[in-house]
Amino acid sequence: MVDNAADYRIEHDTMGEVRVPASALYRAQTQRAVENFPISGLGLEPAQIAALARIKKAAALANARLGVLDSQLAQSIADAADEVIAGTHDHATHFPVDVFQTGSGTSSNMNMNEVLATIATQKLGAAVHPNDHVNASQSSNDVFPTSVHIAVTSALIDDLIPALDHLAVALEAKAEAWAGIVKAGRTHLMDATPVTLGQEFGGYARQVRLGIERVRSALPRVAEVPLGGTAVGTGINTPAGFPQLVIELLQQETELPISEAADHFEAQANRDGLVEASGALRTIAVSLTKICNDLRWMGSGPNTGLGELFIPDLQPGSSIMPGKVNPVVPEAVLMVASRVVGNDATVAWAGASGSFELNVQIPVMGTALLESIRLLSNSVRVLADKTVDGLQVNEARTTALAGMSPSIVTPLNKVIGYEAAAKIAKHSVAKGITVREAVVDLGYVDRGEVTEEQLDAALDLLSMTRPPQQG
Amino acid sequence: MVDNAADYRIEHDTMGEVRVPASALYRAQTQRAVENFPISGLGLEPAQIAALARIKKAAALANARLGVLDSQLAQSIADAADEVIAGTHDHATHFPVDVFQTGSGTSSNMNMNEVLATIATQKLGAAVHPNDHVNASQSSNDVFPTSVHIAVTSALIDDLIPALDHLAVALEAKAEAWAGIVKAGRTHLMDATPVTLGQEFGGYARQVRLGIERVRSALPRVAEVPLGGTAVGTGINTPAGFPQLVIELLQQETELPISEAADHFEAQANRDGLVEASGALRTIAVSLTKICNDLRWMGSGPNTGLGELFIPDLQPGSSIMPGKVNPVVPEAVLMVASRVVGNDATVAWAGASGSFELNVQIPVMGTALLESIRLLSNSVRVLADKTVDGLQVNEARTTALAGMSPSIVTPLNKVIGYEAAAKIAKHSVAKGITVREAVVDLGYVDRGEVTEEQLDAALDLLSMTRPPQQG
Amino acid sequence: MVDNAADYRIEHDTMGEVRVPASALYRAQTQRAVENFPISGLGLEPAQIAALARIKKAAALANARLGVLDSQLAQSIADAADEVIAGTHDHATHFPVDVFQTGSGTSSNMNMNEVLATIATQKLGAAVHPNDHVNASQSSNDVFPTSVHIAVTSALIDDLIPALDHLAVALEAKAEAWAGIVKAGRTHLMDATPVTLGQEFGGYARQVRLGIERVRSALPRVAEVPLGGTAVGTGINTPAGFPQLVIELLQQETELPISEAADHFEAQANRDGLVEASGALRTIAVSLTKICNDLRWMGSGPNTGLGELFIPDLQPGSSIMPGKVNPVVPEAVLMVASRVVGNDATVAWAGASGSFELNVQIPVMGTALLESIRLLSNSVRVLADKTVDGLQVNEARTTALAGMSPSIVTPLNKVIGYEAAAKIAKHSVAKGITVREAVVDLGYVDRGEVTEEQLDAALDLLSMTRPPQQG
Amino acid sequence: MVDNAADYRIEHDTMGEVRVPASALYRAQTQRAVENFPISGLGLEPAQIAALARIKKAAALANARLGVLDSQLAQSIADAADEVIAGTHDHATHFPVDVFQTGSGTSSNMNMNEVLATIATQKLGAAVHPNDHVNASQSSNDVFPTSVHIAVTSALIDDLIPALDHLAVALEAKAEAWAGIVKAGRTHLMDATPVTLGQEFGGYARQVRLGIERVRSALPRVAEVPLGGTAVGTGINTPAGFPQLVIELLQQETELPISEAADHFEAQANRDGLVEASGALRTIAVSLTKICNDLRWMGSGPNTGLGELFIPDLQPGSSIMPGKVNPVVPEAVLMVASRVVGNDATVAWAGASGSFELNVQIPVMGTALLESIRLLSNSVRVLADKTVDGLQVNEARTTALAGMSPSIVTPLNKVIGYEAAAKIAKHSVAKGITVREAVVDLGYVDRGEVTEEQLDAALDLLSMTRPPQQG
Repeated sequence: MVDNAADYRIEHDTMGEVRVPASALYRAQTQRAVENFPISGLGLEPAQIAALARIKKAAALANARLGVLDSQLAQSIADAADEVIAGTHDHATHFPVDVFQTGSGTSSNMNMNEVLATIATQKLGAAVHPNDHVNASQSSNDVFPTSVHIAVTSALIDDLIPALDHLAVALEAKAEAWAGIVKAGRTHLMDATPVTLGQEFGGYARQVRLGIERVRSALPRVAEVPLGGTAVGTGINTPAGFPQLVIELLQQETELPISEAADHFEAQANRDGLVEASGALRTIAVSLTKICNDLRWMGSGPNTGLGELFIPDLQPGSSIMPGKVNPVVPEAVLMVASRVVGNDATVAWAGASGSFELNVQIPVMGTALLESIRLLSNSVRVLADKTVDGLQVNEARTTALAGMSPSIVTPLNKVIGYEAAAKIAKHSVAKGITVREAVVDLGYVDRGEVTEEQLDAALDLLSMTRPPQQG
Repeated sequence: MVDNAADYRIEHDTMGEVRVPASALYRAQTQRAVENFPISGLGLEPAQIAALARIKKAAALANARLGVLDSQLAQSIADAADEVIAGTHDHATHFPVDVFQTGSGTSSNMNMNEVLATIATQKLGAAVHPNDHVNASQSSNDVFPTSVHIAVTSALIDDLIPALDHLAVALEAKAEAWAGIVKAGRTHLMDATPVTLGQEFGGYARQVRLGIERVRSALPRVAEVPLGGTAVGTGINTPAGFPQLVIELLQQETELPISEAADHFEAQANRDGLVEASGALRTIAVSLTKICNDLRWMGSGPNTGLGELFIPDLQPGSSIMPGKVNPVVPEAVLMVASRVVGNDATVAWAGASGSFELNVQIPVMGTALLESIRLLSNSVRVLADKTVDGLQVNEARTTALAGMSPSIVTPLNKVIGYEAAAKIAKHSVAKGITVREAVVDLGYVDRGEVTEEQLDAALDLLSMTRPPQQG
Repeated sequence: MVDNAADYRIEHDTMGEVRVPASALYRAQTQRAVENFPISGLGLEPAQIAALARIKKAAALANARLGVLDSQLAQSIADAADEVIAGTHDHATHFPVDVFQTGSGTSSNMNMNEVLATIATQKLGAAVHPNDHVNASQSSNDVFPTSVHIAVTSALIDDLIPALDHLAVALEAKAEAWAGIVKAGRTHLMDATPVTLGQEFGGYARQVRLGIERVRSALPRVAEVPLGGTAVGTGINTPAGFPQLVIELLQQETELPISEAADHFEAQANRDGLVEASGALRTIAVSLTKICNDLRWMGSGPNTGLGELFIPDLQPGSSIMPGKVNPVVPEAVLMVASRVVGNDATVAWAGASGSFELNVQIPVMGTALLESIRLLSNSVRVLADKTVDGLQVNEARTTALAGMSPSIVTPLNKVIGYEAAAKIAKHSVAKGITVREAVVDLGYVDRGEVTEEQLDAALDLLSMTRPPQQG
Repeated sequence: MVDNAADYRIEHDTMGEVRVPASALYRAQTQRAVENFPISGLGLEPAQIAALARIKKAAALANARLGVLDSQLAQSIADAADEVIAGTHDHATHFPVDVFQTGSGTSSNMNMNEVLATIATQKLGAAVHPNDHVNASQSSNDVFPTSVHIAVTSALIDDLIPALDHLAVALEAKAEAWAGIVKAGRTHLMDATPVTLGQEFGGYARQVRLGIERVRSALPRVAEVPLGGTAVGTGINTPAGFPQLVIELLQQETELPISEAADHFEAQANRDGLVEASGALRTIAVSLTKICNDLRWMGSGPNTGLGELFIPDLQPGSSIMPGKVNPVVPEAVLMVASRVVGNDATVAWAGASGSFELNVQIPVMGTALLESIRLLSNSVRVLADKTVDGLQVNEARTTALAGMSPSIVTPLNKVIGYEAAAKIAKHSVAKGITVREAVVDLGYVDRGEVTEEQLDAALDLLSMTRPPQQG
């Protein structure tokens, strides 16, 4: 790399001078952070950068209204923020600070302050200071966690919930289409009494919809933000009315149901709301794991597995076994689940590391959570569109298997008792005959213990799948 | 051990004969399970045994009303269940099945069926059958998970929430008592602007109260039970109206807000509600970790630590260092938190292991969750009673430290700007003088950049802890 | 409970007087701990109590040899310790301190000191002091963690490794017996090229043997003990030569490969060796999960699953579905795996909580690890004896399935290329014909692209399972 | 984006035609995967792409030697692979497949096969086929996991171990420099007997060196690779001698201690070696957590904390509190630890998800592990260079605090007994006097129970930090 002096300019901060790339919008503190943290090469998630900019805009406008900043100066900051929100300035170039930085996110907050100060200075034609102006009435300690909570709230509401709904709709369509397809129930992986394929898919859909409920339940505590508490929660260096006003402006700017923390000391020192939300995401990962494993097993085969479903062929499955087709999307979703489980462990571990007025693992919590939401949102859409929608049932095989389960003897419990029914089931398996044949073979019909009519009623598969009706 | 033939009787089940202790209330299947699972030596949690018995009672009464069982026979089962609920029969003796058993809990369900059948038979004077009568209209697959959800619901509502409330009350009392005690704020463990000790304890109390909200948020999905779905969710072998009636009776019996599953297939195949609840408990463990660590550090010393709080002396702290007193209760709570985090990992891992119509890791999930709730409930009460209540503040030291933080320069930002204020803070630390002395020493007063009045106002510690007032 | 004054005696410690049950071998500090920690009701694992007593014995004898204690007094302590090691004194009665206590285990160390002092006093006929004599040259801070490491080392060597070996032997027997049984390979759950059942069981056996290697790899750092460092690692209040001598005596007493910590400050402040060992146990849990899931699926059916193996019938599988038999032992092992995963999370979380000269979560780490080892040891023996040994293969079905996999076309890649082979595989599945039939049907034989001899060679199932031989 | 037909070309695979960017080196299957998996936007780690290419090179050369491929054709593949290894072809452009893809990594294996086929075709001037030539004698199922194990082995040996050694050296330098600095020991965060600062840093260094041992212990099982097993472990479609030869060539190519799997069925079906290695990384994360927390607390202050160390000033610490300097690098390392803990959970969860002949979560395991190693390697270097090297001790304060600990009474145990010593310690704290003054004040000297000489000897701080010397 050419390291030409002309490509750099000198910036300074309270610690002295720093050499910064000539074209950089950022200044001294960002540059220090770039040099201090050559760790992951990974910057903040775009959603969080946008949220940070929105906070700066709201704060500038609130400061202007409350007399802390000159209106024109404040507007120049807001305009600069709008450019960042719009994505005008490339993140990799202008927001180069590593996720693994100071745990308060101060470096990223100062990065934003510096970039906005530079842009606003150009717009205003007068010096806009990163700390005294852009950061006025704020601290990294309230701004940075607020940016995480806003980005997470937005991602949950705007990305994850619609994506889960999309998957639920796809599953519900199958539940309806397959309401009449009888299949073998399986408990402990062993043949059980029948269900319908529609009932199973209805269960999956319900699981996904419960996932939405879980996210909604956690939202109020995610959407509660510490903004206004500044350094330690006391709101030092804010004008009266600032927290209320800046949050009101932020609500308008983001159109999200964010609220001011009921207790700024709790809200600033802890990120428990993120830990809770991560637990909800993990529960969704658990649900998806079950659903995808069921799909994979129902699609297993074509000849040596269960073979009840045909999973859409999306790509050749093997580089060596010709013609093989694999359930690749469910596998991808299962890997997403593993990642979400890991991110959740990160969030909990980090969330427990706070001391006194601050948790100092906020950046890694934000990144882990936002990554989880992004992966879940994208992958459940792919699951719906590329797998669930295209599923087809091997109806002949599915129905045949249902009739082969020895557990269809179960309705006979009420006629001849559990122990006699067990004898029949075992006889059927041992002899390789149907349950009906076993009943006859063991003499229950001859002895008059069961009538043919009772047998017909008891062994009707579809009626076994229907909850008894009242009245 | 004497293995006298006279001490045993022969029982049988569908697999043949089994030798059972002569005095055992249980029968063949329990005995098989005892022999099959010599793994942990640990039985079900007592709360779950009681919940199982309550379900049996409700089912017997519902079966009688719906004509499935003779009323007297049903009443004998209900009476037998009442004895178990009352704790009349020693758990270790009569419910000896290991937690690590079949994953559906069938062995424990059959253990309960057999014990109740034996007792009811004695009461009724006629044979009551474990499967055909006690288990009528039921399956382990709906009964056993229902017993976990009921026991967890009960433990959350009756044990954990009141215990958390008790701790919150204790913390709130300190918050009020110490509302006027100024102390140094600490962010990144470094000296920050002041807070009051009351503000910190108010934050802790709020954290605990948010924990209660988290539990309440998860409750609706914990309290939704699969009962009525029997083997695979279809309700096979139940009379019409059974799920509604049995759950209504169970609500009366338990006085808990339990509800019938909206979708029996989801409810039977998955234990996601437990995974979600466990996530809430883990969040509480994270909160307690932060609180207990803060308490330990504020109490650190007496001479080489922070020394702001006196933690009550409960026992000699060291077997070698005489006179040492340690924060033993916060340490115990921190260990509880570690256990809860581990139990949570168990619950999530187990929760993801279901296939088709059943999750087969229900016993370990129930035990882990109930243990977590019990440990949390007990330990937060001990924390409140033996530590928080008895905390005393070292007011002289606490206030002195507050004034020694160089960050008290922060209010001067608004007067002379962030960069000049930074110079003052550094000067104060380097010279070992107060911030006020540093301001003077650097000539800000002489040069008229700050007046004495401004200094007085800016450096008033208590006012730094008060959010600015509107109007 | 009758609370008769005559049932109690008064003991005292440095904090004052305490009322202790008249028959208790323990004294004041144990009693305080009992009252301070009513949390779990769970005491230390028996293996750790024995290890603690062994340390006390070794320390007494070392103290005598080094002139710190009178020989007769020391012998009385050693004799008392022998009684505890032999299990003469009921743990629940005499070691009642809760696991969730002070994080250094001081309460349990003092419990042991007090019990041994009481017994030794009786033996000697003169006062033996818990601190000055039994605890001489020791601190809880080196003794208690040493007791965990010794108990864990012993449990790994004496319990877990033999149990894993026992399972490996059982699996190896099946690998040998089934070396010639061809079955369908499955990748992505989809039909793949064949393997033998023996190869699969050989793989399981190797997995278990690798588990033994994992445990052995971790052992050196588990077996390194902090004993001799006393309060903070400096060995304060020990006579010269104490650490070397006491550890030598302890090696003789325990017959374990324990060693003195290379660095007493590292060894005392951290429990990383336990975290590492727990990671090895978790890896074993992961291995067992794979093995048990494979067994469950191979045994699935009898009629609607894979149906390749018959898993021994140990107990009736269902309380409602007559005749159902479930893979109950593999399920129990899977639940053990979930518990081990959770215990591992506990150990890691606790292990990261140390500060300066001490980790204060040692009791919960010890209990979690010892529980994991116990559960694994017991459950893999049950798995070997009650499931693996009794497995039977459904050879007809297994072999038939192997031939039905369309992936048996794979050897034709080398004759006609991957793309043509893919066409054949798909044709076979679409038409429901064998691969050989598909080759013919598509004209490859007629066109002379494949000869009958090549087909015979390529489609021989057993030869597909044999690695090509050199030369 | 302009979607000009001229910018694309048509490729085909066994499923039909696909439109591929005209300039892409990859072909149809890669393109399908790009379209199938729009999930994370994240590709494989560069280290794994290089490892994959190395395997392809070795396989091509082995195939040539064993007569499977024409020598010139094989050389063209090897040359193409060398270009990829050298980084000639931009990863984002030519290896665009998402990590969250099919769980076998088949899409990435085919991506590599296609890219190399395209380059090799250009070099050779004749068609090189992705499957029949580049993938000859291979399957994704052995190649892809092998690439993970090679990349991980390389990263552990070449990156992590040297980085840990670098940190250990830095810590050892401080241990030596500060061997004579007495400081207060702290157990339970409470004042304990003294240690030297050098002893503490020696302990940290030992912890880091034990981390290296942990990595080395796990290496043999990470370096064991499944290559040669092809589809299911049987080595189908490989020539005799292939596994041995290809692994020999790979050893030469990579200069790593890789070895052929002892059992190809175990090695192909399971990724337990990765789970084990991840456990070692987690243990290192636990060690770093302890070290960084200690550093942060010793550096806490400057005026209200412990204030024993000065942590280098790297950047302004606060956007609002002027002059504040924070321990930013230890915080970054702590966040790395949280991420490693999360990645470890991902690896274990994914590792437990295998079935029969394949684990289908390999890509996420590889990415998580390689990320952990990269983060740890980079961050411990930063920790050494930017924090440990520049640490300075506040000697006056540190020594003063050491003398203020009441636990320095401990050596008097041996003179006057534990209980009398406790009385002295408590008296010293209560009165705010030194331990020596308390001894005198309580009359022990007057009464002749302790002589002045004994007091001098007992209360010498430095001698308390030295293990007693033999002889």
